Amino acid sequence: MRYEELTTEGRNAVLEAFRSGKTIDKLFVQDGCHDGPIQSITREARKQDTIITYVAKERLDQMSASGRHQGVIAYGAAYAYAQVEEMLQAAEEKGEPPFLILLDGIEDPHNLGAIIRTANLAGAHGVIIPKRRAAGLTAVVAKTSAGALNYTPVAKVTNLSSTIEALKEKGLWFVCADMDGESMYRLNLTGPIGLVIGNEGKGVGKLVKETCDMSASIPMKGNISSLNASVAAGVLSYEILRQRLFAGG
Amino acid sequence: MRYEELTTEGRNAVLEAFRSGKTIDKLFVQDGCHDGPIQSITREARKQDTIITYVAKERLDQMSASGRHQGVIAYGAAYAYAQVEEMLQAAEEKGEPPFLILLDGIEDPHNLGAIIRTANLAGAHGVIIPKRRAAGLTAVVAKTSAGALNYTPVAKVTNLSSTIEALKEKGLWFVCADMDGESMYRLNLTGPIGLVIGNEGKGVGKLVKETCDMSASIPMKGNISSLNASVAAGVLSYEILRQRLFAGG
Repeated sequence: MRYEELTTEGRNAVLEAFRSGKTIDKLFVQDGCHDGPIQSITREARKQDTIITYVAKERLDQMSASGRHQGVIAYGAAYAYAQVEEMLQAAEEKGEPPFLILLDGIEDPHNLGAIIRTANLAGAHGVIIPKRRAAGLTAVVAKTSAGALNYTPVAKVTNLSSTIEALKEKGLWFVCADMDGESMYRLNLTGPIGLVIGNEGKGVGKLVKETCDMSASIPMKGNISSLNASVAAGVLSYEILRQRLFAGG
Repeated sequence: MRYEELTTEGRNAVLEAFRSGKTIDKLFVQDGCHDGPIQSITREARKQDTIITYVAKERLDQMSASGRHQGVIAYGAAYAYAQVEEMLQAAEEKGEPPFLILLDGIEDPHNLGAIIRTANLAGAHGVIIPKRRAAGLTAVVAKTSAGALNYTPVAKVTNLSSTIEALKEKGLWFVCADMDGESMYRLNLTGPIGLVIGNEGKGVGKLVKETCDMSASIPMKGNISSLNASVAAGVLSYEILRQRLFAGG
């Protein structure tokens, strides 16, 4: 597995990490630092949409492994993120209609890993996650994905709704997992599709839901209200695969 | 949730726990203790098929919370286990063909909890787990089941193959999850059914597999070899539910 820990400390090291194209998830900058080198770093960070958090020197001191952070510590992605465009290209190369899975705020890394694993096996061309309030690609995710992270690309986007809008223009239809939606068995889920799975507790956000073309529910015969998020993603992904397999007749 | 920790120490307390019908999963007895009271306890333990482990006094001393174990410590089920017969009755009362999920050695309590949650929502009448080498009903399982443990009965059996044989005589058919099996879409999964899910790493054991009537595989389009156990259980359970829903035409 191509996992590596990426914590970078110190001005030159952090600036170099940005300039060499390493993906930095989070940048911590010391309160009140606005000198030239720090400004160069925050400018690079903004280019990459890295989340910048300003903290007190004491907090940085605690976080620092080397003790020489010079006012800046960066946490990098364990795995490299892909671009959404690459996923569409992969679908085209395989001669398949695109099938993407979008996660609106999955917080549990075990769920994220299990969903990437499912995406790989159900024939999805990629997984899209938002930058904020969501689990990123960490060692736990890599392990739980059982190797799928080496094959199935994961992209990180700033705004899920905008990404959906852009992909709709390229011909994708979006179906959102929603317990109040139409039964998944009654929907036509063949063709280029994006499946949107919501947060473990809150489900799919209102704005994202409104951007979708349809809502799909999994039939519930029991007493409780919802499946585990990774199980729901699995059941819906396989309904999409089933419809694709049998669409020809 | 009707969860409670059940660790019982001391001769009278442990004997009383057995006699009052509490389910004891594991009994630890001090090496060399064979006097009357201990023999009464081990006799009760054998009646309930509780696993008895003989350990050195030093180990019991370490395990003991009270410091007064008198040579015996019992660990109880957080939740009460059900009988397989109750599951069949529940199906009959609902006028449905029985649908049971049997787990051949699921070790991860998160997977067990997620599967009980799925069982509840997919309309299964119960979950059957083996006594040995498997996660039991603990606080983690209860939490991960999201309340399903209050509704979906879980039975613990000594020998999964014997249980399958006994249920076959009552008219159930058994399908085992196996990546070398027939595609689940090509099998008839309607009617009284038991779905067997294997261990996270090793799959379904040879003997149990041979006892089943058929093997079902989930189509795999990707690069890795298997889904997460709770996702696989979800996909197969929902294929059973789908076939049941549409069996009438």
